[in-house]
Amino acid sequence: MFSFDFNSFRFFGWMCGLVALTAGYSHALSQSFQPARISELYGDSTDQLLKAAMTSRHGFNRLAEMCDTFGPRFTGSENLERAIDWALEEMQVDGFSNVRGEEVVVPRWVRGNESLTLMNPRQKSCPMLGLGGSVGTGPEGITAEVLIVDSFEDLKTKADQAKGKIVLFNAPFVEYGQTVVFRVRGATEAAKVGAVASLVRSVGPFSMQTPHTGMMAYEDKSVPEIPHAAITVEDSLLFERMQSMGESVRVHLQMDAQNLEPGLSRNTIAEIPGTENPEEIVLVSGHMDSWDVGQGAMDDGGGCLAMWEAARLILKSGLRPRRTIRVVLWTNEENGMAGVRSYRDGHEKELENHVLAIESDAGTFRPYGFSFTGSEQAMPYLESIGKLLKPLEADRLKWGAAASDIMRLVPDGVPVMGLDVDRTRYFWYHHTDADTMDKLDLDEFNRCVAASAVMMWVVADMPVRLPR
Amino acid sequence: MFSFDFNSFRFFGWMCGLVALTAGYSHALSQSFQPARISELYGDSTDQLLKAAMTSRHGFNRLAEMCDTFGPRFTGSENLERAIDWALEEMQVDGFSNVRGEEVVVPRWVRGNESLTLMNPRQKSCPMLGLGGSVGTGPEGITAEVLIVDSFEDLKTKADQAKGKIVLFNAPFVEYGQTVVFRVRGATEAAKVGAVASLVRSVGPFSMQTPHTGMMAYEDKSVPEIPHAAITVEDSLLFERMQSMGESVRVHLQMDAQNLEPGLSRNTIAEIPGTENPEEIVLVSGHMDSWDVGQGAMDDGGGCLAMWEAARLILKSGLRPRRTIRVVLWTNEENGMAGVRSYRDGHEKELENHVLAIESDAGTFRPYGFSFTGSEQAMPYLESIGKLLKPLEADRLKWGAAASDIMRLVPDGVPVMGLDVDRTRYFWYHHTDADTMDKLDLDEFNRCVAASAVMMWVVADMPVRLPR
Repeated sequence: MFSFDFNSFRFFGWMCGLVALTAGYSHALSQSFQPARISELYGDSTDQLLKAAMTSRHGFNRLAEMCDTFGPRFTGSENLERAIDWALEEMQVDGFSNVRGEEVVVPRWVRGNESLTLMNPRQKSCPMLGLGGSVGTGPEGITAEVLIVDSFEDLKTKADQAKGKIVLFNAPFVEYGQTVVFRVRGATEAAKVGAVASLVRSVGPFSMQTPHTGMMAYEDKSVPEIPHAAITVEDSLLFERMQSMGESVRVHLQMDAQNLEPGLSRNTIAEIPGTENPEEIVLVSGHMDSWDVGQGAMDDGGGCLAMWEAARLILKSGLRPRRTIRVVLWTNEENGMAGVRSYRDGHEKELENHVLAIESDAGTFRPYGFSFTGSEQAMPYLESIGKLLKPLEADRLKWGAAASDIMRLVPDGVPVMGLDVDRTRYFWYHHTDADTMDKLDLDEFNRCVAASAVMMWVVADMPVRLPR
Repeated sequence: MFSFDFNSFRFFGWMCGLVALTAGYSHALSQSFQPARISELYGDSTDQLLKAAMTSRHGFNRLAEMCDTFGPRFTGSENLERAIDWALEEMQVDGFSNVRGEEVVVPRWVRGNESLTLMNPRQKSCPMLGLGGSVGTGPEGITAEVLIVDSFEDLKTKADQAKGKIVLFNAPFVEYGQTVVFRVRGATEAAKVGAVASLVRSVGPFSMQTPHTGMMAYEDKSVPEIPHAAITVEDSLLFERMQSMGESVRVHLQMDAQNLEPGLSRNTIAEIPGTENPEEIVLVSGHMDSWDVGQGAMDDGGGCLAMWEAARLILKSGLRPRRTIRVVLWTNEENGMAGVRSYRDGHEKELENHVLAIESDAGTFRPYGFSFTGSEQAMPYLESIGKLLKPLEADRLKWGAAASDIMRLVPDGVPVMGLDVDRTRYFWYHHTDADTMDKLDLDEFNRCVAASAVMMWVVADMPVRLPR
């Protein structure tokens, strides 16, 4: 129904004038805007966001609902696609704009049944997890002696003993990036010297007979692809002690693992459109997929829900940023990065207008602030925003973004940022059956939401675009 | 071969005189011996013991050998009896006297195959451990809805909903003695209100999807015996969240558990006979049996080896105490206490000459000192011995022995003592597959050996018998 209303007409004219005025003011402001003015301009709105985040159970409950309803969300699984459907529906309910799943072709690896049995010097079942991408053993499995090494160098010195054996990389956890090489490259290095399968001591600093899965790769196509699995720290050390007592350690490994034809998944996207520069995008993200164990609560359900909830609170508070806030819940971070690759290809022309990309993928534990990779000119603005997070003690800005998916956007010039949290126990639960909802804490989660909300709101709204 | 040797004859006469003199001196000393003189008399010998204990890998390596060679040592298992055979042989090699296995009739419970599957609201395999003494479900298993309660009181208020259900006692870990009641008595209480099986949230303060087994009992013979199992903290909380979202939680429980006819095991015993009062006994102990998971490294392989090693170091140092040191490695502590009961019956007449019984059964973590149950007159002597442990910072004596088997000797008037250690992580690993050798530390273990060696040596040798 349409009817002419004089008052509305008058109000419309008044509004047009106000918008014109504001735009002019805004333009002038942007020319001279100094980082130090951020607290003055945004103190009230960010106080409101902090309070809203810290007094809510909404995001945390929604995370539990996702984890408990769908279970782990592995790429290629029905669980993941059902969780994406659910998230898209919920985002509509929240009132986000442009809610959509953007299709992504993803690799599909399936674990199937698997087991490891110690056969000599005594028989014992060993907890294990095949590594993502590994081939299987065939139904008959592989029985062989274990050759234990603690590094690639050690493997070289023992190369003449490796033929026909199962190589175990028994390397102590030093730091993830350093120790994970045996998980990623172990099969290829072992196959080069004639091993028939390879095992890796789980990559983690603490274990309760807890195998950790994760991605592996066959890096050299001229080398045979052999099965590769993770065993527990306990059993790695047991095998080592047995060997040092002069025992021959023999195991039977059986894995039904298969690499299937690629399938389809989706990046989950929702927006708060910018009021002035909708083409400029602040991308805020986590990854929706998890490994096929536990609940993917920490890695990375919490990251997804923290970013989503932060954006929802901005929306709910009635705040409308100048630039677009785009929530992206990546698919297939864990075993292929197909989600972000596909996004990069599909949004290539927009990338120069990606003002900032944020990701939370280190667990929603107590936040300290943010890590950043971008220009030096940007840092003073980010530090000024950081000051608004003093009440949370989450005001630390440091160089070198710790993030996963969004690092793929760095070559395109996109400034990227990770939520920086207490990672004391992150690698205890990482890629294990113990990555479950109970490992997360409401207060810590809310602090992540609060810090993220403040950062995304101010970067999306401040009078100047964050310098590249 | 025998030949007369004049020098030997002369030496023998000289020795007889010395022994007579020493005995007279000793008698006079014992009449007036004050606790404060302990450090003066024993400073040298205990310094020697401390040094020997802290610089050795022998006991720790022997513990690893036992754990790795035999695996868990559950009552009724071949593993346990083979470990006992091994210990008896090793004790002979050490040069102990009166090395023997004393037969004990023990209960036999076998776990068999077992599993728990969440059926609704989604399907998921749940790590679980049946509880010791539980009946099985029959091969077809039990499928039923789960009724979640957090206490016996809560069960009473929900009694009318329990019929035909599986009751889950989802009680948070407060303190072992308090929380363990649901594991011990849960089945009987659940059966009283018509439940068909019962589950208990594992009794532990931290979990990595770690079920904890342990003893349960059917306390009221007029009540049906229903299957009883432990699930993980993670799944208990998951079930609770599902229920609070209005879901009906249904599970399928299958347990082959059986109580078999009693069998035979042994208490493992070795002695350093007393030189003056061999009839007076300082009993030092741990329990040889473990649950049928992990390696029983902490509970209680470490306790056994710490006491055994302490006695071995006394022997090896050439120290010969006035009283007998009797090492006892109990059988069947975990599910019946048949070992100590049998000892008590078989050694009834000796009990009044048990000067002190010591046990280490709280893990060989960093020791603080000892806990004691006995007379007030004894404490000054123990405190004076404690002072010799200052270099270890293990000089704390406190009232109220924390020990298991030897508490059964208290009604007979035997003073009892527990090795008091840092128990921060004890209940993380307790009765789980994660109770493995790697959880123990050489330095901490050696401190336990050192403290135990000093305590047992001085109590066994000091001029006066420890007052009752």
